[in-house]
Amino acid sequence: MLKQYCQEKVAMIDAALGRFIPDSGQYPPAIFEAMRYSLFAGGKRLRPILLMAAADAVQSDGSKFLPVACGLEMIHTYSLIHDDLPAMDDDDYRRGKLTNHKVYGDGLAILAGDALLTYGFEVMLSQPGVAPAVLLATVREIAAAAGAQGMVGGQTVDLLSEGQSIDAATLEFMHRRKTGALFRAALRAGALLAGASQEQLNCFNEYAEQFGLAFQITDDILDVVGKEELVGKPIGSDQKNNKVTYVALYGLEKAREMARQTVEKAITALDIFGTEADILRDLVRFLLARDS
Amino acid sequence: MLKQYCQEKVAMIDAALGRFIPDSGQYPPAIFEAMRYSLFAGGKRLRPILLMAAADAVQSDGSKFLPVACGLEMIHTYSLIHDDLPAMDDDDYRRGKLTNHKVYGDGLAILAGDALLTYGFEVMLSQPGVAPAVLLATVREIAAAAGAQGMVGGQTVDLLSEGQSIDAATLEFMHRRKTGALFRAALRAGALLAGASQEQLNCFNEYAEQFGLAFQITDDILDVVGKEELVGKPIGSDQKNNKVTYVALYGLEKAREMARQTVEKAITALDIFGTEADILRDLVRFLLARDS
Repeated sequence: MLKQYCQEKVAMIDAALGRFIPDSGQYPPAIFEAMRYSLFAGGKRLRPILLMAAADAVQSDGSKFLPVACGLEMIHTYSLIHDDLPAMDDDDYRRGKLTNHKVYGDGLAILAGDALLTYGFEVMLSQPGVAPAVLLATVREIAAAAGAQGMVGGQTVDLLSEGQSIDAATLEFMHRRKTGALFRAALRAGALLAGASQEQLNCFNEYAEQFGLAFQITDDILDVVGKEELVGKPIGSDQKNNKVTYVALYGLEKAREMARQTVEKAITALDIFGTEADILRDLVRFLLARDS
Repeated sequence: MLKQYCQEKVAMIDAALGRFIPDSGQYPPAIFEAMRYSLFAGGKRLRPILLMAAADAVQSDGSKFLPVACGLEMIHTYSLIHDDLPAMDDDDYRRGKLTNHKVYGDGLAILAGDALLTYGFEVMLSQPGVAPAVLLATVREIAAAAGAQGMVGGQTVDLLSEGQSIDAATLEFMHRRKTGALFRAALRAGALLAGASQEQLNCFNEYAEQFGLAFQITDDILDVVGKEELVGKPIGSDQKNNKVTYVALYGLEKAREMARQTVEKAITALDIFGTEADILRDLVRFLLARDS
């Protein structure tokens, strides 16, 4: 059921992204080519899927919110492009493909990231069928989650702590912002656009918190035990880069146990929902089983 | 009159920017320090002033729109930070001060730019006292002006044409997007927020077109004849970098004549307005007399 749901949504999202940034007819072509290169580099579309699944869980039709969902994916993609730059993580490969700056050069990669972030907002603000005040509040929340108090703040801590030993609290702070904030914004955006109640929003807040944590722990585990061809980047790169990870801090077995407990908490957070939230339950369970 | 108007508005804008990004109490401090460094590096606040002057010209009170005005300044500032990076123009100084990456390093400079762009949207979307649908449309226009079809598109053409000879049409296309698009968005935003009529909007469109052109021509002239300590960067840097400029294309005298004619056209565009548009008239005249 999860597999079919995701396949359907990914097809929708990819088609919509292709309409938002067509592959020809725009000038200067180089910037649109660089934007498309990373946007269609095999991403799992997790954030737009979370947005739609949250809307579905409150009895709406998540696919009505494709513009906001696609805008989120553009913001996520820009952050990956800038993160991979030599001045940041200096990665040559992502998902098994050359990173943006390895193909287009640092200058164009910076601009492609800038353009995706900016266009993400333009696309989100074009979402039809939602009361303007609700859309304003939703996009404002997404901006806050993506900025210096959210994702960019987390990347800053990551950048400044590389090669240094950080403690568990700093590690959690960093991930809560670097990846957690955008997951949370995706879930809340789906819920807000669909008109969720405050009680439902509170449940999504807790689910989002645990989902983000489970994502990060399983990501760290994958860096140690994953198959290189599936993960798409060299296994052990965190260790090589002296990155603090959950596995480094707690060991592999304890990290696995933490991941399982976190997934259970996420599922418990959805107790007020019936089967309409099954996709969200399956999505967080899937984190334990994923191989990439 | 222009001088006093600008001093008042700059004081308002600076105070508001300081409230939006206070100088302490935020974590991680490094990113906010880097954001503030460039935001308070002596910018002329031209875009927020244009926004407020356009609102004033349609009998509104431009200072009501400080959040959108400040958001525009943040977007402008991010573009300067990224433009100065080694992967782009590789400039060490701007307005007589070290550029952001020379002080904070390339990684943090990239993140400070990202954070300013993102926060610019968050701040604009918090603008009170405007119908949500009007605010949505206004911010959407600003996003379009700042993105791949606007400012970032112009920077892309600039990046790709460095060291190459480009023709007059390409030069104009580049400037129309790189600087013109955001001037235009500033003027239109002020007009839209203030509830301008379609006839008034048309006048601002034409004024913006000519203002942007006059700004660029006088900028190119300043690079040749300006005083280094006033302009804040080495004089002749365009020539040194093999940049195509209006002066290089047409010679100094013809460029001066073009600037004068362009300013006249901008003033003519405002013919339907009375004295309430005098600030806009003075602002474009000022471009001819500026020394920085």
